[in-house]
Amino acid sequence: MPVNLPAIEDQVLTPIKGIRLGWAEAGIKKANRKDMLVIEIAAGSSVSGVFTLNRFCAAPVTLCKKHLAAKQGIRAMVINTGNANAGTGDVGMQDAQTTCQQLAEIMQISPEQVLPFSTGVILEHLPMDTLLAGLPKAVANLDADNWHNAAWSIMTTDVAPKAYSKTLDVNGNTVNITGMSKGAGMIHPNMATMLAYIATDANIEQSLLDEITKEITDVSFNCISVDGDTSTNDSFMIIATGQGDSPAITSREDAGFNEIYAALTEAAQYLAQCIVRDGEGATKFMTVSIQGAKTVEEAKTIGFSIGKSPLVKTAMFASDPNLGRVLAAIGYASRECASLEDLNTDSLELYFGDVLVAEKGGRAASYQEEDGQAVMDKEEIDITVKLNRGEQQATVWTCDFSYDYVRINAEYRT
Amino acid sequence: MPVNLPAIEDQVLTPIKGIRLGWAEAGIKKANRKDMLVIEIAAGSSVSGVFTLNRFCAAPVTLCKKHLAAKQGIRAMVINTGNANAGTGDVGMQDAQTTCQQLAEIMQISPEQVLPFSTGVILEHLPMDTLLAGLPKAVANLDADNWHNAAWSIMTTDVAPKAYSKTLDVNGNTVNITGMSKGAGMIHPNMATMLAYIATDANIEQSLLDEITKEITDVSFNCISVDGDTSTNDSFMIIATGQGDSPAITSREDAGFNEIYAALTEAAQYLAQCIVRDGEGATKFMTVSIQGAKTVEEAKTIGFSIGKSPLVKTAMFASDPNLGRVLAAIGYASRECASLEDLNTDSLELYFGDVLVAEKGGRAASYQEEDGQAVMDKEEIDITVKLNRGEQQATVWTCDFSYDYVRINAEYRT
Repeated sequence: MPVNLPAIEDQVLTPIKGIRLGWAEAGIKKANRKDMLVIEIAAGSSVSGVFTLNRFCAAPVTLCKKHLAAKQGIRAMVINTGNANAGTGDVGMQDAQTTCQQLAEIMQISPEQVLPFSTGVILEHLPMDTLLAGLPKAVANLDADNWHNAAWSIMTTDVAPKAYSKTLDVNGNTVNITGMSKGAGMIHPNMATMLAYIATDANIEQSLLDEITKEITDVSFNCISVDGDTSTNDSFMIIATGQGDSPAITSREDAGFNEIYAALTEAAQYLAQCIVRDGEGATKFMTVSIQGAKTVEEAKTIGFSIGKSPLVKTAMFASDPNLGRVLAAIGYASRECASLEDLNTDSLELYFGDVLVAEKGGRAASYQEEDGQAVMDKEEIDITVKLNRGEQQATVWTCDFSYDYVRINAEYRT
Repeated sequence: MPVNLPAIEDQVLTPIKGIRLGWAEAGIKKANRKDMLVIEIAAGSSVSGVFTLNRFCAAPVTLCKKHLAAKQGIRAMVINTGNANAGTGDVGMQDAQTTCQQLAEIMQISPEQVLPFSTGVILEHLPMDTLLAGLPKAVANLDADNWHNAAWSIMTTDVAPKAYSKTLDVNGNTVNITGMSKGAGMIHPNMATMLAYIATDANIEQSLLDEITKEITDVSFNCISVDGDTSTNDSFMIIATGQGDSPAITSREDAGFNEIYAALTEAAQYLAQCIVRDGEGATKFMTVSIQGAKTVEEAKTIGFSIGKSPLVKTAMFASDPNLGRVLAAIGYASRECASLEDLNTDSLELYFGDVLVAEKGGRAASYQEEDGQAVMDKEEIDITVKLNRGEQQATVWTCDFSYDYVRINAEYRT
């Protein structure tokens, strides 16, 4: 079961002016399951995205980048689950194009104004007849108040849907932010088998939105790992419809920028953490903070070295305060970050929760195993490393490694 | 159970002139278990080693490097299991020094002629009284024909001991090679929770042996992964006693060099593969060959990207011919090797055994799932990637990821 993942039924998901969402049970892989979503976006919205760096990136990812580059104004997104349309060669690209064309025809826009997303099994061709038959059903369903259904309709191995909503007051104006994400396995930057969409009615100029979408990704979705695998289809999109009552923002100096930037970052971090909380087989949620690094890269590398170590993750599963495995993971981080080759292990400090567990190259003199055990027994575990060699820091979020991770991934295609 | 790991009881382990081995049941972590080994090395032998790159390297590793650098001629090694003496600060270094001093006194050599090795739990101090009491027992036991017992006495989570022996004829002279290794978890270059020792009666000059020990490591112990974790204590040693009847070798041009080099490489690869066969929870043994790369680094990076992917490894456990996960792992290898950023996924070919499963960016037209299934059903699985972009290649060996991996590592300290 997910680790402290809030049930979205209890959440108010505020509609965003300029956004309507429509789902369908298209039957792409399984019957009677919401497996398709269309998002309609009002003209004049800014839309930015960040995509997987996997060289085997899927056809829809390639087409998304092309359509964004065409700068005709994105008016719709179409998302299917059950099939990733990745590793599908020329046919896969044709299928993605056909999907955009058909949806464009129904919605009376141009194909370049449609962004396609697919998630699911790799290397299978999309069942095009089934998929295309679902499109009019999804469009018929379009409704501004459909975020709950939308979050359900993008799930794959997710146990539960993930969504976020916040209304803030920015200099007397109301700004609404609502978003959703999916993903549970093949999760590691850059990026993961994940999709995430955040919409706001704030008015953010396109090139500025492009900039901050990258920055926000680096402190949210690029800070999570379930299993160290980077998928072929990851996409994170921010849509700013500009239909709220807050004034236009075209530069970082504009009034309201800082508040909205912080709120979008919080939304992205929340949705990224939701993915980890629903990590395949997860029973623990770990926050790994690395402080006092020379560079952010150093901090992030050590964070992931701890956060993706199978030995650390199995120890967490067992609630075992195994400091040794954490120290070993810190020690081999230099494999992936050259500046760490002069890391002085004698001057760093390791904390489990608030408990100092290691310093001066070994176990802290004050450390009692029962104190470490009390931290490990919790569902939410904080690990902090103070490197004491600089001013930079990074935080990564990860989950433990359980029997169920193996079961889920051994049985995935059966 | 280990995957096709030959039982050493059925192997002849030829004694090496100039080497005697003595074990003890010192009781370091558990009673009634061979947990200490002393290796006596004749004067005049060449001894070379390669050690972990983990920044948290253990006290004995630091001391080994110091004693090798002292160039007084290594005359003994002492190995204990049950405790890694890593993350133990100044006390740990004193303990390692005391161990060398006491053994040196008993054997009437100097402490700098002793190399210490420890493997086991990290962050605990060595139980020195127990350990020192074991030393005279191990020395009393010294015998040239003790390789079987020696292989047992260096085991930790290993299910079975690992050893190798070969006698070859080099230009009419007999050369003997015998070695052993241990390790099952925390296995990933550079290097692993592993110890390996190979001895030969060949006569190889010290600086040449240093060179080839590094080279041999790169194609053997640095080509295996069980879980992607690099331990604090890994060491691989080659001892050339020169007491056989083959002439001295001081350069690569000398008669017999090529044959002996090849034989030592074979020994190291065999012992490295033994560690994977006994990988924690392993049910499958995978050989991943990457051909047609621009550089060896490219090939090795892709090999490990496949070989350490939890998704690939859980699919192997399930005998699932999941090409998609292998292609995804190839695709994200560019995360760790910049030259792969221009990898053309359309021009590579992927084989399971002899079966072409993917080409031109997708599933091969000729591929039938039952052919891939037949390959996956075997205990020994070969995966080959032809990148078709250069002349370099690399092979890595790895195992699958099973429920038992999680069980073993969740229960390790209990």
